[in-house]
Amino acid sequence: MANNTVTAARGFLAAGVRCGIKKSGKADLGLIVCPAGAKAAAVFTTNKIVSAAVHVCKEHVKSASISAVVVNSGNANTCTGQLGIKNAVKMCAETAKQIEAEPHRILVASTGIIGEQLPMGKIITGISKAATKLSASSKAGLDFTKAIMTTDTKPKQAVRRLEISGKKITIAGAVKGAGMIGPNMATTLCFITTDVAISKPLLGRALKNAIGNSLNKLTVDGHQSTNDTAIILASGLASNRPILSQCPRYKKFTGALMDLCEDLVKQMALDAEGATRMFKVVVKGAATEADAAKAARAVADYPLVKCAVHGGDPNWGRIICAVGSVGIKLNPDKLSCKLNDITVFKNGGPRKFDAKKASKVISQTEHTITVDLGVGKSSDFCYGCDLSAEYVKINADYHT
Amino acid sequence: MANNTVTAARGFLAAGVRCGIKKSGKADLGLIVCPAGAKAAAVFTTNKIVSAAVHVCKEHVKSASISAVVVNSGNANTCTGQLGIKNAVKMCAETAKQIEAEPHRILVASTGIIGEQLPMGKIITGISKAATKLSASSKAGLDFTKAIMTTDTKPKQAVRRLEISGKKITIAGAVKGAGMIGPNMATTLCFITTDVAISKPLLGRALKNAIGNSLNKLTVDGHQSTNDTAIILASGLASNRPILSQCPRYKKFTGALMDLCEDLVKQMALDAEGATRMFKVVVKGAATEADAAKAARAVADYPLVKCAVHGGDPNWGRIICAVGSVGIKLNPDKLSCKLNDITVFKNGGPRKFDAKKASKVISQTEHTITVDLGVGKSSDFCYGCDLSAEYVKINADYHT
Repeated sequence: MANNTVTAARGFLAAGVRCGIKKSGKADLGLIVCPAGAKAAAVFTTNKIVSAAVHVCKEHVKSASISAVVVNSGNANTCTGQLGIKNAVKMCAETAKQIEAEPHRILVASTGIIGEQLPMGKIITGISKAATKLSASSKAGLDFTKAIMTTDTKPKQAVRRLEISGKKITIAGAVKGAGMIGPNMATTLCFITTDVAISKPLLGRALKNAIGNSLNKLTVDGHQSTNDTAIILASGLASNRPILSQCPRYKKFTGALMDLCEDLVKQMALDAEGATRMFKVVVKGAATEADAAKAARAVADYPLVKCAVHGGDPNWGRIICAVGSVGIKLNPDKLSCKLNDITVFKNGGPRKFDAKKASKVISQTEHTITVDLGVGKSSDFCYGCDLSAEYVKINADYHT
Repeated sequence: MANNTVTAARGFLAAGVRCGIKKSGKADLGLIVCPAGAKAAAVFTTNKIVSAAVHVCKEHVKSASISAVVVNSGNANTCTGQLGIKNAVKMCAETAKQIEAEPHRILVASTGIIGEQLPMGKIITGISKAATKLSASSKAGLDFTKAIMTTDTKPKQAVRRLEISGKKITIAGAVKGAGMIGPNMATTLCFITTDVAISKPLLGRALKNAIGNSLNKLTVDGHQSTNDTAIILASGLASNRPILSQCPRYKKFTGALMDLCEDLVKQMALDAEGATRMFKVVVKGAATEADAAKAARAVADYPLVKCAVHGGDPNWGRIICAVGSVGIKLNPDKLSCKLNDITVFKNGGPRKFDAKKASKVISQTEHTITVDLGVGKSSDFCYGCDLSAEYVKINADYHT
């Protein structure tokens, strides 16, 4: 079977091990190493309280060449003061030591419980253990993906293969995240490797654009985490004619990257804490794109809409209520709503529809809610998922 | 036992009957009548999509004297177009006919499912039935309170008695609401009767202030309903020296009204859909009151905080994460957090605390979360409740 993990792109080794942060006994430390160095770009959470890992990673990602990414799960290293920063720096230093690289060329990310100091003894042992297991195998890539999981029930990864200037290019991504997911940030932890040859600024632009239209469009519980980080590493080993401008080759690359990120975001939505199905909210007829985005997110975030989707209940009134509550421009006499192709509300009045058929539509793994605000020509979208009793169970007893 | 219902204030009759809107067989139509007429004031939802009842009520409340309020539960009369407006007007006309009053002196409110037309035959029969049952008894008052319930598990009412210029004054309130409750509006349906003599503008000011500091500070699921209405009726029959300015008598009245509303809001929080406990979030040290309000609401609305409270899990990291996510001014190095008196986070760093004791604190029926942003002197608060699996159950299958 073809490698569909972060080691699929040429130039990358990976490992995932258990170092003992998680009480569950599961893997909790991962490494991606690019021995020849990689160009890197990243996007981060916009929360005002961020992990010490985010502080350090923001600095290190400025380096012209990156040697490795070290990630731990089970502890967010957030709200941990100066000691937290010291520990994030130490994670980079230890990784650098093990792979014989420079500390400022190591990126770091953490995810898990907030407010506890990292168990550095365990982490240091874990880093050296991971370093001995580095491999370009798909098993090693999967081990990495598993090591970054928290409440995820399955590893999430995807790969895209394309040709640019006659050379085979691979883009591979691993992502974690199941709760505390809201849009307008680099949602959760996401690591993308590619062997494309591209300039650092264009790599950054491509990442920002792809995340903006995929992971940033997903809301599970409207939460903006303190640790969200998306990193892309480009080894350049595909030896394509380097992408140095927004030329057709750039567009081909960004198209594939976008497609990869969409794949990852759908995996996330369907593995969201307690989720059994996902939906896309499309808002059109808006005065501005910002209005459309706000309305789409309001619908996707509405607990009552999420509960209705969970129950297969075509309770479209809650959708309209959500749209009306966020202060955007709309025309109550032109407002319309569809569940996939079924019109349930048109020009401000209810429409007779087959409730059983509508219930079937929203009970599918994926469906689309379309709202027309009736005032303009702008549109935007958002991904959401249902809210189940399981979400509460998972989150009522996370700490212990 | 003293009457603690809306008929406790002099000059009011009430009734609550079953007219057949609700499939459950429970009461669904209520009347409050003030035969001698009452001064009235009201506050409404700020949602852009509002019930036809809200449209009509907004007009009628301008009348110098109000004769009655008619309320139905089980159907919101929202997203019902022109026919919805016609039906709301008809509810007023029918009530006027039954009690021999003028239609524009009748206020109307609806609550329940959105997007279905009112069953007017049933409602008209219900109004005439209710009119025959009008009484000043506490049973009639309780019947009214029961008739406005939707997913509430118990009737919510309260009374306050005070003296103004040597006269006994009564203020009584009935409220419904258990879900779709967010602040910054007149949350849910709330009907207050009083026999105080007061001018109409001051009655309006007193209501706005009392609701602003009580019902508007409660968030159950961050939802802003399309039907929220709070109405106060003042018969003036206490014969106190009329309140015509913001004099000490006005302050005494508003103090008691505020106290009544706080009582009602706590009853609502504890009967919120699936809720088992409530909490108050106090944010201080903010640059502005608006910042403090935004942060307090963010914490109270955060599903992960609500789940943690449900599980008795002192997971304060989620509180800090919520505060950081709403773009307000804060000092990460001064940020602090307490659960009642237990300091869990101080000056940007975690504090050792007794987790068992903290778990006990947040497992109480009521506790206070205090966050100090460390940048200014402003503060504000918000009420919230826990999120349970029961909330999902209630809302996943509401329609059918």
